[in-house]
Amino acid sequence: MTVTDSPDTIGSVQPSPKVGFDREPSQYKHWKLAFDGPIATLTLTVDAQAGLVPGYELKMNSYDLGVDIELYDATQRLRFEHPKVKAVVVTSGVDKMFCAGANIRMLAQSPHAWKVNFCKFTNETRNGIEDAAENSGQTYIAAVNGTAAGGGYELVAACAEAVLIDDGSSAVSLPEIPLLGVLPGTGGLTRVVDKRKVRKDRADLFATKAEGVRGATALKWGLVDETAPRAGFDKAVQARARAAVAGSTRPSEAKPVPLGALERTETDEEISYRFVSAQLDRQHRRVEITVRGPESAPPGDGDAAVEQGASYYPLQLTRELDDLILQLRTNEPELGTWVFRVQGDPQKVLAYDEQLEALAQHWFVNEVRHYYKRTLKRLDVTSRSLFAVIEPGSAYVGFLLEIALACDRQYMLDGVYVDVDPDAGPAYLQMSAANFGSYPMGNGLSRVQSRFWGHDDDFDRARNQVGVPLVAGDADACGLVTMALDDIDFTDELRIVLEERASLSPDSLTGMEANHRFVGPETMETKIFGRLTAWQNWIFIRPNASGPEGALRRFGTGERASFDVKRV
Amino acid sequence: MTVTDSPDTIGSVQPSPKVGFDREPSQYKHWKLAFDGPIATLTLTVDAQAGLVPGYELKMNSYDLGVDIELYDATQRLRFEHPKVKAVVVTSGVDKMFCAGANIRMLAQSPHAWKVNFCKFTNETRNGIEDAAENSGQTYIAAVNGTAAGGGYELVAACAEAVLIDDGSSAVSLPEIPLLGVLPGTGGLTRVVDKRKVRKDRADLFATKAEGVRGATALKWGLVDETAPRAGFDKAVQARARAAVAGSTRPSEAKPVPLGALERTETDEEISYRFVSAQLDRQHRRVEITVRGPESAPPGDGDAAVEQGASYYPLQLTRELDDLILQLRTNEPELGTWVFRVQGDPQKVLAYDEQLEALAQHWFVNEVRHYYKRTLKRLDVTSRSLFAVIEPGSAYVGFLLEIALACDRQYMLDGVYVDVDPDAGPAYLQMSAANFGSYPMGNGLSRVQSRFWGHDDDFDRARNQVGVPLVAGDADACGLVTMALDDIDFTDELRIVLEERASLSPDSLTGMEANHRFVGPETMETKIFGRLTAWQNWIFIRPNASGPEGALRRFGTGERASFDVKRV
Repeated sequence: MTVTDSPDTIGSVQPSPKVGFDREPSQYKHWKLAFDGPIATLTLTVDAQAGLVPGYELKMNSYDLGVDIELYDATQRLRFEHPKVKAVVVTSGVDKMFCAGANIRMLAQSPHAWKVNFCKFTNETRNGIEDAAENSGQTYIAAVNGTAAGGGYELVAACAEAVLIDDGSSAVSLPEIPLLGVLPGTGGLTRVVDKRKVRKDRADLFATKAEGVRGATALKWGLVDETAPRAGFDKAVQARARAAVAGSTRPSEAKPVPLGALERTETDEEISYRFVSAQLDRQHRRVEITVRGPESAPPGDGDAAVEQGASYYPLQLTRELDDLILQLRTNEPELGTWVFRVQGDPQKVLAYDEQLEALAQHWFVNEVRHYYKRTLKRLDVTSRSLFAVIEPGSAYVGFLLEIALACDRQYMLDGVYVDVDPDAGPAYLQMSAANFGSYPMGNGLSRVQSRFWGHDDDFDRARNQVGVPLVAGDADACGLVTMALDDIDFTDELRIVLEERASLSPDSLTGMEANHRFVGPETMETKIFGRLTAWQNWIFIRPNASGPEGALRRFGTGERASFDVKRV
Repeated sequence: MTVTDSPDTIGSVQPSPKVGFDREPSQYKHWKLAFDGPIATLTLTVDAQAGLVPGYELKMNSYDLGVDIELYDATQRLRFEHPKVKAVVVTSGVDKMFCAGANIRMLAQSPHAWKVNFCKFTNETRNGIEDAAENSGQTYIAAVNGTAAGGGYELVAACAEAVLIDDGSSAVSLPEIPLLGVLPGTGGLTRVVDKRKVRKDRADLFATKAEGVRGATALKWGLVDETAPRAGFDKAVQARARAAVAGSTRPSEAKPVPLGALERTETDEEISYRFVSAQLDRQHRRVEITVRGPESAPPGDGDAAVEQGASYYPLQLTRELDDLILQLRTNEPELGTWVFRVQGDPQKVLAYDEQLEALAQHWFVNEVRHYYKRTLKRLDVTSRSLFAVIEPGSAYVGFLLEIALACDRQYMLDGVYVDVDPDAGPAYLQMSAANFGSYPMGNGLSRVQSRFWGHDDDFDRARNQVGVPLVAGDADACGLVTMALDDIDFTDELRIVLEERASLSPDSLTGMEANHRFVGPETMETKIFGRLTAWQNWIFIRPNASGPEGALRRFGTGERASFDVKRV
């Protein structure tokens, strides 16, 4: 939430640049990461001139996607490169302004798809902040040393605890609705009532009050956990950080795992990494993604895994997959279907799978598991149709089977491609304990539970097959695949369904997939990606927000927005 | 889902007519209600020429709002006028076509707000069908004697059970996505996975396959409960109906309660009934709604209440409130804020409140309670800002307190209006057992639970005040009101907040309220109104559906839709 000076670009939608997600702390433009024993401090001092796209200045510590990509990088490094860090203080380097939220000029000039993708990524990063506290003993504490407005307050709400400076001027606020006619789109509404448990009528007041609330009211309503005058502010924050450190399960001595730069080659038709590659089939508007299994046996124990570091197979694979998902989502919106193949030696995958289960308590393996979980969750909320192809040479077993289960459909060849390699071994699926809770979806269910929701008998039957190689007929009988076809039908069927998919309205597919993928229980996370995001998407394309006279476009011009006052 | 012949009106959005909700079975144009002892049959034979708005023909048993208003009327009468009916068979009077769903031409020519409001009402009616089975021992059975497409299948999914004719041609389908580029908007996606528990990948196949699935596949996937050949179809349906009758809790002998025509006077500035009146303040774009308490003591017992029939206070009040909500929602979209006042003698309200609790097992009182519950749920999903004003003369006690709790904010005068009536008694609120579970929201919580979600101490404190009159200070301390102000501040504050509200973007308010009102757990119902509806609203205004080259507008013209293929 911030004003920029020259409204000359208002009204002109800027083209979206190609975005990369590689960052490195020494080159951060907006964040500073500092350490004091087990306490890290992440300080936001946005470089107003270093926006990702031309056309806006990031004044008042407001952010764009570039600022948030650095934040994501920092949260990842804190988990892997800083095993001893047990508390992370998030604060501002700008006087009296913690963070003004997403930059309005940036939003106003961005195409609809960019706005939506931006919100998705920022939401995932904030969920990751909560994940660190919940699963890694790394607690984020917001040291709100100035006003936190809009996305600024949403970042505060994503932290486990918040201390607000009581200086007579600093406020927390969600001014999106009164000033911009859009929702706080990064989980704000949901976290205010569902996490911070602010009473509904107060939440209503808060979200319609542009100037927000300060000190005592913010505390009374539950928007922050503590207020402190300027003189006692650092002490209050440090006391909370030390308490978080004392309660942490994180090791006190451990060897860091540096996240070196990812090796990636890119052409217009391909993005490839060591274990992941993607063919961009522009003609058919799909991406053929191949995930390759490990080439060797896992290291002997957790410390040996740490020695391998970023090249430890499950970590390297996850980083590659994560980067690919982010690149494709942001840069390739026209490639609407992702077709996954997982290839390799199933036994080698299972050896890693066993290790990931056996060493789940080891800090590094724990981090790898949760990172892989978060990456699968990215798939779950990706607005692309996801298809899994299972054919000879496949290695959809254990934790890699989750990729097939995350897909909207699973197509399995029954037998082999007789004309290609009649002597190949037919593909099989194999479940392990990992498929029953190690990598839960946002709704808290495993993907197998979700698949058999409401069918306990089918679920039990599937569980009884753990450890059993399931060739096509068995996998079909077990309910793990959508279709099992022999090679006479398989290729044709797959070609037809993928062509059909590409012919459908992309919007309706996005809506359908968002509804189908989350059966059963809901969590704050699924509410943010389901309810909140869907409403925000609707509001983002309504003329009242994004039309030439809408609030988002008029903001900062001195002219008031002109609304169609009809309630829909 | 149906095609109409002349595409000449495609592209022209028709103005919305003023809609009334009074119906009477003898004058139904589209439905026929027949009785055979405890089994009723609702037969759909749409009069193609009797659409509510000019510009389309309701071919192939497709429906518009008018068809659905009759259905709503029938479901209400079945509960009150037919206490002995324990099973309701829903079927078609058209050969080989159960129902083709919402009429496409109607959707294509309707303004966005009309589409959204139409879907909301049809969803509420289908939720009511489920409510009858769950709470009134009146089970709906879909006798699918022809193809059920789109909204046709969604109606089937709302029934407790479904028998599909196995005649080699009749199918169930959700062709919205492949043919129209929109979602099945009446709970279809949600009910397929969450109620009928169809596996996610099969749900994906089903919702993208225009022709749907027939007999054995429909049964195997769980889309219907039984299939039967033409010869055995009626027998199969009747067997299910008889089983439902046998398991029903409904009385076998009981005096019907006729729902006579509502008395209502309407001008451009007012809609009024006996116990409810609404001033339409067009200048300030709000409605001042007054609900009046009962004038006398409740009847002696359940049978005496039945004697009073539709004039039994809680029933008459509910019918009036229900009608008003529907009228305002449909016909007055520009009046964005509803301000509620409940006036009367609190003790008389409490006497009724006690009776509604004491006689909860009486079939008629049970119906009244559930009808009042459903009407409050309409408020919860109404896209208007809801304010409660509590001042001298108020009767926000017991079940009528729910109206205040359903509001986004509650403003209470502390004391009296000194200049108006210094001798008046100050208003008080009073909770009863009714506020703790008798009228749950769609998320399954009472409104008090919802208000204090996550604050068990506040909830317990509130519960300890049951039966205690709470004047402003007490109500505020108890957390039941947003603000308690004395008369020096009250009038000004209320005027300012209402003016502020009217100045905000209507879309952002709708999104905000939809997110704030449903804290905590989710149900199929909240998913339908939250996630599904929000996505549908987004899709409805995307050019891929509703633009001149969109699928909804192009359908039936012979031209293919032209899509922006970018995934958002």
